[in-house]
Amino acid sequence: MCGDGALAYPIVAVNEANTKHLFDNRYGTGQSTIDGITRATNILWAGRQVVVVGYGWCGRGVAMRARGLGSQVIVVEVDPLRALEAVMDGYRVMPMQEAARAGDIFITLTGDINAIGKHHMDAMHDGAILANSGHFNVELNLEALAGMAEKRREIRPFVEEYTLGDGRKLFVLADGRLINLSAAEGHPASVMDMSFANQALSSEYIVLKEERLPIDVYRVPHEIDAEIARLKLASLGVQIDELTDEQRKYLASWEEGT
Amino acid sequence: MCGDGALAYPIVAVNEANTKHLFDNRYGTGQSTIDGITRATNILWAGRQVVVVGYGWCGRGVAMRARGLGSQVIVVEVDPLRALEAVMDGYRVMPMQEAARAGDIFITLTGDINAIGKHHMDAMHDGAILANSGHFNVELNLEALAGMAEKRREIRPFVEEYTLGDGRKLFVLADGRLINLSAAEGHPASVMDMSFANQALSSEYIVLKEERLPIDVYRVPHEIDAEIARLKLASLGVQIDELTDEQRKYLASWEEGT
Amino acid sequence: MCGDGALAYPIVAVNEANTKHLFDNRYGTGQSTIDGITRATNILWAGRQVVVVGYGWCGRGVAMRARGLGSQVIVVEVDPLRALEAVMDGYRVMPMQEAARAGDIFITLTGDINAIGKHHMDAMHDGAILANSGHFNVELNLEALAGMAEKRREIRPFVEEYTLGDGRKLFVLADGRLINLSAAEGHPASVMDMSFANQALSSEYIVLKEERLPIDVYRVPHEIDAEIARLKLASLGVQIDELTDEQRKYLASWEEGT
Amino acid sequence: MCGDGALAYPIVAVNEANTKHLFDNRYGTGQSTIDGITRATNILWAGRQVVVVGYGWCGRGVAMRARGLGSQVIVVEVDPLRALEAVMDGYRVMPMQEAARAGDIFITLTGDINAIGKHHMDAMHDGAILANSGHFNVELNLEALAGMAEKRREIRPFVEEYTLGDGRKLFVLADGRLINLSAAEGHPASVMDMSFANQALSSEYIVLKEERLPIDVYRVPHEIDAEIARLKLASLGVQIDELTDEQRKYLASWEEGT
Repeated sequence: MCGDGALAYPIVAVNEANTKHLFDNRYGTGQSTIDGITRATNILWAGRQVVVVGYGWCGRGVAMRARGLGSQVIVVEVDPLRALEAVMDGYRVMPMQEAARAGDIFITLTGDINAIGKHHMDAMHDGAILANSGHFNVELNLEALAGMAEKRREIRPFVEEYTLGDGRKLFVLADGRLINLSAAEGHPASVMDMSFANQALSSEYIVLKEERLPIDVYRVPHEIDAEIARLKLASLGVQIDELTDEQRKYLASWEEGT
Repeated sequence: MCGDGALAYPIVAVNEANTKHLFDNRYGTGQSTIDGITRATNILWAGRQVVVVGYGWCGRGVAMRARGLGSQVIVVEVDPLRALEAVMDGYRVMPMQEAARAGDIFITLTGDINAIGKHHMDAMHDGAILANSGHFNVELNLEALAGMAEKRREIRPFVEEYTLGDGRKLFVLADGRLINLSAAEGHPASVMDMSFANQALSSEYIVLKEERLPIDVYRVPHEIDAEIARLKLASLGVQIDELTDEQRKYLASWEEGT
Repeated sequence: MCGDGALAYPIVAVNEANTKHLFDNRYGTGQSTIDGITRATNILWAGRQVVVVGYGWCGRGVAMRARGLGSQVIVVEVDPLRALEAVMDGYRVMPMQEAARAGDIFITLTGDINAIGKHHMDAMHDGAILANSGHFNVELNLEALAGMAEKRREIRPFVEEYTLGDGRKLFVLADGRLINLSAAEGHPASVMDMSFANQALSSEYIVLKEERLPIDVYRVPHEIDAEIARLKLASLGVQIDELTDEQRKYLASWEEGT
Repeated sequence: MCGDGALAYPIVAVNEANTKHLFDNRYGTGQSTIDGITRATNILWAGRQVVVVGYGWCGRGVAMRARGLGSQVIVVEVDPLRALEAVMDGYRVMPMQEAARAGDIFITLTGDINAIGKHHMDAMHDGAILANSGHFNVELNLEALAGMAEKRREIRPFVEEYTLGDGRKLFVLADGRLINLSAAEGHPASVMDMSFANQALSSEYIVLKEERLPIDVYRVPHEIDAEIARLKLASLGVQIDELTDEQRKYLASWEEGT
């Protein structure tokens, strides 16, 4: 919007704050996505093949938690750096078409359209479960699935069964909308606190500086980010050290060594 | 009951079957206990100190899953062998009195009475959460807690707040009853299937042998146990090998070596 | 040997003691096998496909540690109960022939002969590494491999390169002998202490009871096992609780409930 | 050096490349640090209290791998954001002085001076092991330790025993120099390949652009970084998808939503 001149006022990109995306997106979405799917389906995660589509911070969180519950995780990712991290983190990485055949549960977190499309659903085995925890209900191509289905019915709240022409049944959760908000309670308060703190303190920051800030997209100032982390640690009863003067000086220098 | 002559008919100790206690107790209770506490409280598990009281199969399952969700797990156990396993599995092990001061969330799975008693609750910090996933509502000494409390109220379904004389608040889940059955849906069908198969096939076993079985407690026959595992693997689409004749012969011998 | 009347004196099956096989076999073999392969090859474990053949206590240890270093673990097992545990523990389980195609590193811990045979090696990809950490050098069929090879040479200490007729190279570690003893230092002292304590205390037990013990195979007495665990915990500075009288009484009863 | 005008030619900060610091520092240092300490001491990691000082990419790698081997990990960190990540990753976080009392093995990865100083060593228990895997041998204050010691001797290669006045023994590995380079073989080739590729391709980049690059510090161009990741994935036999045109268009737009 900024590039298109469509912004009406200055924006702070709160999602880019470390105390937002490293925590809310990873630990929050990780847990609440699993939680939403569990509440919707009451499946046992242990031993299941879970396909995580998208290995951004949200995808990492979900992959980490699915593994923590005993699932075998397959990651689908288009960015080679992220794909390589997923490999080194111990996950199998493969194209979506191949993952479609292997998965029991599919979770999209790409922020993009049709991450799972018709040809993928064509390849899924009977009983596969599809959920989205990305941004909108466009990540699963449900229109295509509706076209493939001979019958649809809700078998539990948030669980819709699509019976395909060949008899296979696919289960779509929460109509492809964010599963953690639909079927669970969204993120726990203890992770949203940091996200809201970023919004509140960034709003204050804009207001107090209002006249000097041209219309543009700004990062959350590092001091706000660090202050939120400090307050959060204190609320958890965790104490940390500070650098000594000697250490601060050493870090800034480049002359010492061995 | 057997020792006391109180049995009225032969019993098969289904809980001792490997396809029961290794799976239902561990993977089932592990997941569903966490699930029940999450639904009751919507807490974030990451970064929390979780005290697991009892390191039997159920306790192992809960410890494993709490860690899998990012918690730091403390194990309390009276059996030295199990305590040592918990240490080697990477958990902190300490007496209950010490754990009482450190924990954020307490989960009892001991099968015994007063695993958490008055003096432990005396030491807990404000905001601590207590849940039981063992057998009965005797593991937490709630009578003592009621005596310590100046005020009690339900703040969410399954969450009772006890305000103590010194102002601390402790939260008891589901009145100390099994949290997975109270606040969640119990074990997933895909783990109960094996437990029920043990019950069904053991009943059949007793009935078909009825005249020959004196009143006593019996183990589930190994063939039933192994057959259930085989059927379960098949249902998951997992294939395994069989020993070759050469391998079977080698295993039975003691003469070869190096 | 007992069944064949070949025993010359009473034997205590020390390997069956909990403080032996639950610790030495699992945590000891787990770590030292990985250590031996690392020293022999200096491979990076992260992102590798590691095939663990045999899911007994040793195999569990190796699978757990390979995963802990970032590998993707495939388990091969003939026992359905163990295979099912491996599935629920989050590993892929498949027949050896299929694993042969997928694996980068193969580790046998079966206690049996030809766990990896000619037709498996036929299917392995170029660069695959084979090691044994089971009991003897019979788990890998090296005779068959020698017959398949056009050229053999040692490329690092403990690493022999077999060049096959089709150009593929397979690497066999330590001539198929126990890799942890060959290329590393065997188990750490802090796990062997318990194994040796079992041997010493069991020998004492036999000697002190000598006249009364017929020639047979005996289990390590539970008191010895528990005492070793107690001493080990103390040496680690870990304290645990004891049951109260009330708890002991409750455990023994069957009349209370809810 | 750039700020001080001390640079003699343009520099590409190769360590900042994603295919360098996310992999070499994390997975490489993580594994090789553990490897170096294992080879030097042959300790069992399971059940040990490991203190990781510094939670940058190297520290994360070491913490992850120590946990993967069954250790209980304590993180010491001065940056509140990193400290909070360590908490959420399931580690205990505390000031160095407190960690000094709790730890069995201390590993510094701070890039700073005296991360472990005299007052910390004063508080360590008998038998504690100290190693550095940061940058230079200044992270441990060995001068102070030498002043505290009554006796010093090498008890194994790379293991020096300092006997203090009060009888406690502390063990310093590799004279405080990088433990992975001293006692093991440094990083595996399969992670250094990416680091060297960054150096080679960045050198080529500077040379080909030589005339246009003023003396300054540059980032590795994203295309080089991504190309290295792509090549690495290919070498591992891992295939990934590319965005479709529809997906590329959707990502760039801000008008669609729900």
